[in-house]
Amino acid sequence: MPANKSASVDLSDAAANRQDCDFVRFGPDKPLQLDCGKTLQPLTLAYKTYGALNAEKSNAVLVCHALTGDQYAAGTHPVTGKPGWWPLMIGPGLPIDTDRYFVICANVIGGCMGSTGPLSIDPETGRNFGIDFPVITMRDMVRAQAMLLDHLGIERLLCVTGGSMGGMQALQWVASYPERVFASMPIATAARHTSQNIAFHEVGRQAVIADRDWMGGRYMDKNKRPEKGLAVARMAAHVTYLSDEALHQKFGRNLQNRDALAYGFDADFQVESYLRHQGSTFVERFDANSYLYLTKAMDYFDLAADYDGVLANAFAGTKTRFCVISFTSDWLFPTGENREIVHALNAVAADVSFVELETAGGHDSFLLDVPELFDTVRGFLSSSARMRGIGDTVKAGRQA
Amino acid sequence: MPANKSASVDLSDAAANRQDCDFVRFGPDKPLQLDCGKTLQPLTLAYKTYGALNAEKSNAVLVCHALTGDQYAAGTHPVTGKPGWWPLMIGPGLPIDTDRYFVICANVIGGCMGSTGPLSIDPETGRNFGIDFPVITMRDMVRAQAMLLDHLGIERLLCVTGGSMGGMQALQWVASYPERVFASMPIATAARHTSQNIAFHEVGRQAVIADRDWMGGRYMDKNKRPEKGLAVARMAAHVTYLSDEALHQKFGRNLQNRDALAYGFDADFQVESYLRHQGSTFVERFDANSYLYLTKAMDYFDLAADYDGVLANAFAGTKTRFCVISFTSDWLFPTGENREIVHALNAVAADVSFVELETAGGHDSFLLDVPELFDTVRGFLSSSARMRGIGDTVKAGRQA
Repeated sequence: MPANKSASVDLSDAAANRQDCDFVRFGPDKPLQLDCGKTLQPLTLAYKTYGALNAEKSNAVLVCHALTGDQYAAGTHPVTGKPGWWPLMIGPGLPIDTDRYFVICANVIGGCMGSTGPLSIDPETGRNFGIDFPVITMRDMVRAQAMLLDHLGIERLLCVTGGSMGGMQALQWVASYPERVFASMPIATAARHTSQNIAFHEVGRQAVIADRDWMGGRYMDKNKRPEKGLAVARMAAHVTYLSDEALHQKFGRNLQNRDALAYGFDADFQVESYLRHQGSTFVERFDANSYLYLTKAMDYFDLAADYDGVLANAFAGTKTRFCVISFTSDWLFPTGENREIVHALNAVAADVSFVELETAGGHDSFLLDVPELFDTVRGFLSSSARMRGIGDTVKAGRQA
Repeated sequence: MPANKSASVDLSDAAANRQDCDFVRFGPDKPLQLDCGKTLQPLTLAYKTYGALNAEKSNAVLVCHALTGDQYAAGTHPVTGKPGWWPLMIGPGLPIDTDRYFVICANVIGGCMGSTGPLSIDPETGRNFGIDFPVITMRDMVRAQAMLLDHLGIERLLCVTGGSMGGMQALQWVASYPERVFASMPIATAARHTSQNIAFHEVGRQAVIADRDWMGGRYMDKNKRPEKGLAVARMAAHVTYLSDEALHQKFGRNLQNRDALAYGFDADFQVESYLRHQGSTFVERFDANSYLYLTKAMDYFDLAADYDGVLANAFAGTKTRFCVISFTSDWLFPTGENREIVHALNAVAADVSFVELETAGGHDSFLLDVPELFDTVRGFLSSSARMRGIGDTVKAGRQA
């Protein structure tokens, strides 16, 4: 299970100097005020853009990544060498059509791909924040993204979208900045993290913390990494991203490179081998403390709680148009949770479409090749663009 | 999370000398032949009995425990000081009525409460087996139980029952010893472990193995225990034993001893605190290597595989009467898996009842206060007893 060190990416603060994406750095004059009461400054956001912003700056689509995603939504991921996390969704002629839209995807704060997070240098101590990084929230992430939009000169988004944690941000955006979001498309998400989901996250966090190489959260001071614990956390999480049916179809009880049970503790079954692989490759590209902070941010998410416990109040008077998408096989963010969002939106007479897609892929369905998903996204974006008077071809204002 | 050492039970082989249960020890003349090709000898089985065997020896009910259960099904558990694992089910006047039936519950081989397992002394080396213990199967467990019945002079069980892994044994009993089982009542189980269930078990095993104190499985040589890893394994498993609904009803997003989010990594939510408690108390009573072996035995279970892939063949010509019980909220061993057992039994025209009970408690429902479960068990046992000519009161032959 321990990762092959030679293949590991540099997860140090050097990520903040990578050449394959854009950065914006806010100085002490623009501190990010956090929900916990602290501020982050200086603040760096690492982001990618795809396509071109039109002259009216009206065709921007903000894509928000999920827990272990990053700014590399399209193209080749510089660390893994594999496609980004939404390769079938974002690109020329694809549902989020970069011939038509200006797509922005930023690494969330607390992440480990260049935006300010636990690996960043704490200006007060001169060493990595580590576990001294402040606990952040979904609202904090969105606040930082708004600063990025200001920097890009984009007053109003055509659409904000994302799956899972990305969907939480798509909801938070409307609540935090109602005037800045023409359309919102939350996918496979919820307006609050359920007790069961908090429980699964807590298992992952405890797996990390149980690893002696976590060293109280200060492993980078000793040039260590809690790789085994993080791999276990990833394995546990990964099972929840799939479905019983998907696992059955993909692996069933097939044996791994053998004809009969081995009566030992090597991986007998393909599903065991697959999970171990998921764990060991994940630690190559992700920081353990980031995992703690981002899972915590999801656990804290409860949009209604900020509005007297009434979710509809988060959307009161909204002019944003919504498309809420869920998947039948997603038991982590099941249709019921997505429907609660729709009910709240209905309660304030919002313009909302709700699409439940029949899939076998579980929560991960939003990342998979699901033609009906592509059709839905394409259609919703197109109609939103038409309503904002955006043509089929971009009259480029600024090239990305 | 680390367990309080002072409160820990002695998990050494000394468990084999406890005074609060019965033991049977088979010498080298009665080796237990295992599916892996090895033998276990000498072999010790630790068991409890409740009630009295009648003169005809026809009123014996074998109760098979689940993954982390043991022989202490009723009465007070000597290690935890709490009730055994089926306190509402077994006792005078209870559904498995000890005024009427002679109840036997044995610690499975591979376990850690006195039956031969990884903590036992390997006669070849003179030290604990540890990870050198042979990999065992459900069939091996049942084979050992049959030796116990021989020892007790019981030719034929009135009924064999159990939930989860216990239900697997209830099925295996009929396949292995069709003439010795008058009735079988598998609860919340499956005829094979699914890919998803194997995946969850593998997460738990890797959590144990990732703990540096596991020491390649030989931690007891160094007087260590992989408590943190085992606690994480238990936490991960425990989430799967409950249901989303049960967790929501019990905890929701309630905070633990605080009025507001703490913005730290202490347990904010009650469900986090509850899970940590589940993990830390579990390591007091369970051996990490036993956890590896018993999860593996469940993963290996695939009754049809022993019969040319046709489950019905496992029950061909059976005269056993069955009652199969599932719970609506059990997503680990869902109704569909239980129904497959029923379909196979129907295919061989077996006498089978199938009961799906509406609960919110998830897989753990078989351990909870579910009146409909009690009624079902009581009714099935009573009708089985009547068919075998067993009266309402026991004409005691041998007192337990």
